[in-house]
Amino acid sequence: MKYSLLFPKTQKDAPRGAEAENHKLLVRAGFIDQLMAGSFTLLPLGFRVVEKIKNIIREELNETGAQEMLMPLMHPKEVWNETGRWESAKEVMYQFKKDDKEFALSFTHEEIVVDLIRKHNIKLSDFPLKLYHFSTKFRHELRAKSGILRAREFLMKDLYSAHLTQVDMQKYYEEVKRAYIKIFKRMELSVKVVEASGGVFTDKNSHEFQVLASVGEDTIFYCDKCDFAQNDEIAKVKAGDKCPTCDGKILTSKAIEVGNIFPLGTMYAEKMGALYTDEKGAQKPVWLASYGIGPTRLLGTLVEIYHDDKGIMWPKSISPFEVHLVHVEDPGTEPTVQKVYDALIEKGIEVLWDDRTNVSAGEKFATADLIGIPIRLVVSKKTGDKIEWKERSGEKVELLSFEEVIKRLE
Amino acid sequence: MKYSLLFPKTQKDAPRGAEAENHKLLVRAGFIDQLMAGSFTLLPLGFRVVEKIKNIIREELNETGAQEMLMPLMHPKEVWNETGRWESAKEVMYQFKKDDKEFALSFTHEEIVVDLIRKHNIKLSDFPLKLYHFSTKFRHELRAKSGILRAREFLMKDLYSAHLTQVDMQKYYEEVKRAYIKIFKRMELSVKVVEASGGVFTDKNSHEFQVLASVGEDTIFYCDKCDFAQNDEIAKVKAGDKCPTCDGKILTSKAIEVGNIFPLGTMYAEKMGALYTDEKGAQKPVWLASYGIGPTRLLGTLVEIYHDDKGIMWPKSISPFEVHLVHVEDPGTEPTVQKVYDALIEKGIEVLWDDRTNVSAGEKFATADLIGIPIRLVVSKKTGDKIEWKERSGEKVELLSFEEVIKRLE
Repeated sequence: MKYSLLFPKTQKDAPRGAEAENHKLLVRAGFIDQLMAGSFTLLPLGFRVVEKIKNIIREELNETGAQEMLMPLMHPKEVWNETGRWESAKEVMYQFKKDDKEFALSFTHEEIVVDLIRKHNIKLSDFPLKLYHFSTKFRHELRAKSGILRAREFLMKDLYSAHLTQVDMQKYYEEVKRAYIKIFKRMELSVKVVEASGGVFTDKNSHEFQVLASVGEDTIFYCDKCDFAQNDEIAKVKAGDKCPTCDGKILTSKAIEVGNIFPLGTMYAEKMGALYTDEKGAQKPVWLASYGIGPTRLLGTLVEIYHDDKGIMWPKSISPFEVHLVHVEDPGTEPTVQKVYDALIEKGIEVLWDDRTNVSAGEKFATADLIGIPIRLVVSKKTGDKIEWKERSGEKVELLSFEEVIKRLE
Repeated sequence: MKYSLLFPKTQKDAPRGAEAENHKLLVRAGFIDQLMAGSFTLLPLGFRVVEKIKNIIREELNETGAQEMLMPLMHPKEVWNETGRWESAKEVMYQFKKDDKEFALSFTHEEIVVDLIRKHNIKLSDFPLKLYHFSTKFRHELRAKSGILRAREFLMKDLYSAHLTQVDMQKYYEEVKRAYIKIFKRMELSVKVVEASGGVFTDKNSHEFQVLASVGEDTIFYCDKCDFAQNDEIAKVKAGDKCPTCDGKILTSKAIEVGNIFPLGTMYAEKMGALYTDEKGAQKPVWLASYGIGPTRLLGTLVEIYHDDKGIMWPKSISPFEVHLVHVEDPGTEPTVQKVYDALIEKGIEVLWDDRTNVSAGEKFATADLIGIPIRLVVSKKTGDKIEWKERSGEKVELLSFEEVIKRLE
């Protein structure tokens, strides 16, 4: 795509009041725009990154046999009353009345998915069920700061699985855990799998996927040798302690929660009557687990981890474009840059081409550094019939032929 | 995908109270589920169709240079007050208060997109802007009937364009009109482009894209010879009249509105201060137009148009799968059907394989007819090393080799 057509252009100043680095950079580089506290538009660049994040999640979940669908965002009070969460989650839910009927906006979907399951006459052979969607969540967060890391309206992928037995639930729970680790690895995020409390979801422990980052709102304790890791809500260790499971030492860090998984058990099915009939004719509640990942929170997290003082540095797999092509407007170079652009498009490579006129090379380079696409290509008088190749994460500048550029990109 | 794993299975009975054919068939065939009046889950089959509808829309809009993004669903009262629509659209909007702050759910996004544009210091060279998203809309419809045709929560693609001049706006308006006709044609829907009033959007006339159907809530008058067509809200002709623009005759029909486009003008920009500075330094309001298509309403419309007494008959371009493979469980045929399934997948063909055991051939055929995938393939003892080919829309049954099947599918 031509940068001259992209909405919006980068801006010099960070928004007033923005503290978190991801907030400042995502706004300045034109990835997001704040409508009100905790509420953001995904602008075309941000939308592209989130779509790539979603596709990675989608691929790995489909691999586990999960099926994608889409549940509603506005829910009737009645269904939330069945589990008591209309009251117990009142603080976090947006609830309202219209014509004497009460509604809540989706802060999660356990009740809705259990309602869906119980309405369909599920046979033994249909289990396990693995259903997910990407949908908007609304949570009345008192502190909506940290940019898109803690929003009041955000995207979530939530997966729900229903099983005949606890053993089967635990088996799939472990499978999703492995899928999550793969998902975050594909985005070049290193995560700790951390034991945590179940919050308003369950009285059992859950697992969080935490990325170490000073801007994180969680505090975790983890072993420097083994996989032991706990959220401070439940941790009985402190920094400097000996690890309870090996001879390692406990460290502590702030961290951003990018995913969480809950082995919910039979509570939801019992309260809502999601029952199956076993071989002996007995009615039994299904075992439920739920699994969340926040694609928009990941957008912010990735920027927290991948940036320098010039701008963002996207990992390749989720960069909005593969290549940022900069045209230095030396007279006579127009046909070359057009040829390079067309040839890259022809090869199926996603290119953002800074085709602006009357803009200095320095400004174009600064724009490229701010947006953070991993590969910068330059066409200028100096590059002649070659192309300048520079990676966003390095300093090295190379002159390559078009064929060499393509070979490296493939 | 294996049908044995699909959630949910088809069901014999239509939901109580369902009147519209699309509602009955989409629920029975497992495409949608009703959470409450006017609110539906897109089940895995329905989700697949809607994704295909979205991709067709996306491709044709991108072709016009439009850029995809995603705007929030919960809006602050303040922005709706700027145009007066907090009051004037009160009936249709879901409005509520939380902690002394008032919000509305998105019933449309004009105010939000204009806010976005005015905040970014747009230069003359940045125009025209063409921005769209697929997002959830909430409308407090008094009569939420006709299944997914008139829901209170539904998906909409809304495109907004901003221009320096009326001429430029009109030019793009016509371009989008052509894109819409292409979009509906790709879904095998024949539409009338109908003049209509601007509703709560504008005091100017708009254009609706109407599909003739007895279940439709609109009444239109159109010429049997030329393109003249008007919604009865504004029509000054009646059935049997002579066409005002040619020598044709006026006909009338019920119709379903699947899209609409509004040449909004400068009202929004004037009220909200979305101004640009022209060459002479004067501040001028931008010209706005908006363009909607309802992907979930299209799901219902397609079923209204494409069904018979056995079930749905999807047009190829938006069918949830390309092929429905039925295994008649004759002993010894398992390796053949597995081979055919694997080979189809290998070729990149989307197959729904009815692999259920202990289910009669008759029941499997009825399931295939109800779901409505355009091609049914059968493997049984009778078909030997050939495959039975039958189209959903015809009666003819043919025996083909695997190579012939592939050739026809490509």
